[in-house]
Amino acid sequence: MTGVSARSLLAGPVEVVHVGLDMVASAAEAGGAPVTRVDFLPPAGGDPDRLALLDQLLAPPLGSAIDAANARALARLLASRPHLVGVGLARDVIPGMTDGLFLHAGPPIEWARMCGPLRGAIVGGVLLEGLATDAIEAERLASSGAVTFSPCHHHQAVGPMAGVVTPSMPVWILEDQDGAGKGNRTFCTLNEGLGTVLRYGAYSGDVLARLRFMATDLAPVIANALSAHGPIDVRLMMAQALQMGDEGHNRNRAATSLLLRELAAAIVRTAERERAARAIEFITGNDHFFLNLSMPLAKCMLLAAEGEPLSSLVTVMARNGTDFGIQLSSMPGRWFTGPAQMVRGLYFPGYSAAHANPDIGDSAITETCGIGGFAMAAAPAIVQFVGGDAADAIATTRRMRRITAGSNDAWTIPALGFAGTPTGIDVRKVEECNLLPTINTGIAHKTAGIGQVGAGLVNPPWESFHAALVALAANARERI
Amino acid sequence: MTGVSARSLLAGPVEVVHVGLDMVASAAEAGGAPVTRVDFLPPAGGDPDRLALLDQLLAPPLGSAIDAANARALARLLASRPHLVGVGLARDVIPGMTDGLFLHAGPPIEWARMCGPLRGAIVGGVLLEGLATDAIEAERLASSGAVTFSPCHHHQAVGPMAGVVTPSMPVWILEDQDGAGKGNRTFCTLNEGLGTVLRYGAYSGDVLARLRFMATDLAPVIANALSAHGPIDVRLMMAQALQMGDEGHNRNRAATSLLLRELAAAIVRTAERERAARAIEFITGNDHFFLNLSMPLAKCMLLAAEGEPLSSLVTVMARNGTDFGIQLSSMPGRWFTGPAQMVRGLYFPGYSAAHANPDIGDSAITETCGIGGFAMAAAPAIVQFVGGDAADAIATTRRMRRITAGSNDAWTIPALGFAGTPTGIDVRKVEECNLLPTINTGIAHKTAGIGQVGAGLVNPPWESFHAALVALAANARERI
Repeated sequence: MTGVSARSLLAGPVEVVHVGLDMVASAAEAGGAPVTRVDFLPPAGGDPDRLALLDQLLAPPLGSAIDAANARALARLLASRPHLVGVGLARDVIPGMTDGLFLHAGPPIEWARMCGPLRGAIVGGVLLEGLATDAIEAERLASSGAVTFSPCHHHQAVGPMAGVVTPSMPVWILEDQDGAGKGNRTFCTLNEGLGTVLRYGAYSGDVLARLRFMATDLAPVIANALSAHGPIDVRLMMAQALQMGDEGHNRNRAATSLLLRELAAAIVRTAERERAARAIEFITGNDHFFLNLSMPLAKCMLLAAEGEPLSSLVTVMARNGTDFGIQLSSMPGRWFTGPAQMVRGLYFPGYSAAHANPDIGDSAITETCGIGGFAMAAAPAIVQFVGGDAADAIATTRRMRRITAGSNDAWTIPALGFAGTPTGIDVRKVEECNLLPTINTGIAHKTAGIGQVGAGLVNPPWESFHAALVALAANARERI
Repeated sequence: MTGVSARSLLAGPVEVVHVGLDMVASAAEAGGAPVTRVDFLPPAGGDPDRLALLDQLLAPPLGSAIDAANARALARLLASRPHLVGVGLARDVIPGMTDGLFLHAGPPIEWARMCGPLRGAIVGGVLLEGLATDAIEAERLASSGAVTFSPCHHHQAVGPMAGVVTPSMPVWILEDQDGAGKGNRTFCTLNEGLGTVLRYGAYSGDVLARLRFMATDLAPVIANALSAHGPIDVRLMMAQALQMGDEGHNRNRAATSLLLRELAAAIVRTAERERAARAIEFITGNDHFFLNLSMPLAKCMLLAAEGEPLSSLVTVMARNGTDFGIQLSSMPGRWFTGPAQMVRGLYFPGYSAAHANPDIGDSAITETCGIGGFAMAAAPAIVQFVGGDAADAIATTRRMRRITAGSNDAWTIPALGFAGTPTGIDVRKVEECNLLPTINTGIAHKTAGIGQVGAGLVNPPWESFHAALVALAANARERI
């Protein structure tokens, strides 16, 4: 804490930059000095127990050991080379997927605690699988235990918003072709488009018809085209998209365009004419089509960073619409949860915050990997979708550097002098700086069956990071 | 001119921002003050005759009449709605095109004064038209008067680099669908790609084979797709591309991607499978494919602004590799020329400024319409192609506001808070600010037959603007 308490201390005019107790700043202002206030909280929110833990986790020797572990985990992430290698049915390709199992976004959750849009997506999934013929029957079935639920993340999958994956849905297959994660596979459904769609909890007839078209027409066309084309380096595509105004989470127009450029000729050569045209129209009609590739891309890179003993890097951030959960590299599979937060954003006409569900979806995996909210400086136009102005977008990326272990020099941001995206959220830095990750996200209606109502920015709950810090310290004590 | 001549004048430490004679700054530095030098020249370069003309053209009543004329011309430009309506053969669709007539970039020029790359492109055109069987015979024919030459701009056409259009080449057809320019048509060849291509003066067998493929395969496929699809609003596509890191002259990756998205399904539905695939591959293989649409788009908008009595707005900037020419709205068709300048830029491996031809091509029509160098702030990644850093890109767009009459609010730049592109170069402001337009451009090898050797930034010659100012004043005297 510092400050200049009174103008009389100085001979000349003075401007006060104030950090700390407001009383001091008020005194300076009363003395006639202009005051610029800077928000300040002591590290770890000033909680004495967390401060003591943080000191242990930052100071040598433990702090240096964690730094070294983080460097190794980050190096593995940066060395991974995820490629799009195919499209298959969830039941055929996702590890552990069985009939009657539905995957969902975020940490584990039982039916009773599920939010509206997640329940809506599950109802849609039951109908899609032909397990029920109407929504009432589907809901009864889903709540009866006849369908079992598991997080996407427990199956190397990720799902946007509700994130529901049922056995008969087609999914992208990504495979890491280099580094420590070589051979890792990740999975994600194909993106349905915006508005009234399953992932936002809608399950009307047109939602289901679109999903059936995607399974019977779109997916086979793309699968055949991919077979003819060969694996696609989606990490490189993301690098190009970041030079073209995308941030890889809420703005995917460039990457979607680049994906079509890459696949179009192969689609033409391998599909019947009208099926090819319809597949191309589906892709070009949806600027978010690439989101469902940027998510498993990020998941694949982060998988390579998992399992580094002592590492304080965050390798999962995910929400089920009720709980927000994170995982650390050093404790793969262990969730640290807190309540999902409300999104601050822009609403579609006719909707407001009163209609909004709390934060939902696995798409925060993009921020976990240094894109999305962390790369907003690459995508100033996104402020028209999530709110704020271009300067905010630049400032957000700069701020995220304070809580990350390094940067990804393969993913550069032209407007920041081609600096790499801030990558590898360090739970210690989050606590030390009192600064939570910024996540770009869509907003779902809180009632099942409706769909998207807006988009905006959100932070994780502090509870997740506090719990992770405590567990990290306990884990470190066992090891050192 | 101002300055602080010596530190002793002031009680405290002082930093000097110096504008004016270097002697003053040197004295201040000798006195111990840090000096920031700001380039300064009096208006019109200090030439007393031009200063007197400029005073007349800026002060009321003439200055206000010119301001009003410029506002009308700019409003017409902004109200124009160019659409891509088709592809046809130059001989069938370009007004005044006849067998034996070759169009070229820039102001009129005879064979004897043509630069290497322009001669090379004409040799290629003679071979393509089947008028000769080898380069020596082609060159003899071209220099004999058997082929006649005319600027593209005299035929509502524009051509990048050498800009050679021969009767059998396919061309894009754009048509203005609204405003004062309604019905205006503009034309441009289809872009060949980078490297060893006709527009950079190359005429080898593969260059000609590619041009034949474009005429026999690519153009008919696109023409049929366009017929099925209907007119495309290329102005809107440019608006989107400016949000995606393009500036519309040297970076066209986004617009090319958006064009493919728009046309791909129609190509699939109207072309035989393998022809469709090859056409798509040709488009996706060339990030500059859209350049040949952004140029006639700009030309079409500027045509709408032509013919406004008294207007000091520039409606054409074009170079033939020897001369640089501009035209004003108030005197359509009248060229004000000066020597084409050398480009400052980045060279491909193995090449340097010693190999470079002076500035060439009609592509400066993009800057004339407020994109290209004027919209560099939208395309920070372009500095990797033309040199400089992201801050330079922002500064260039800001600087171009000083010499333009207004901005195009349909073409916004996210990084500048969604401000419109600076549009409508006012020859009076260029003289008043001593500030020439900045043009992004490619660099051709100076020898016929080689091709592109780099890319960079260039300014027009002062002679063009000085001559235009004098003519504007004479023209005004006749009218008022």
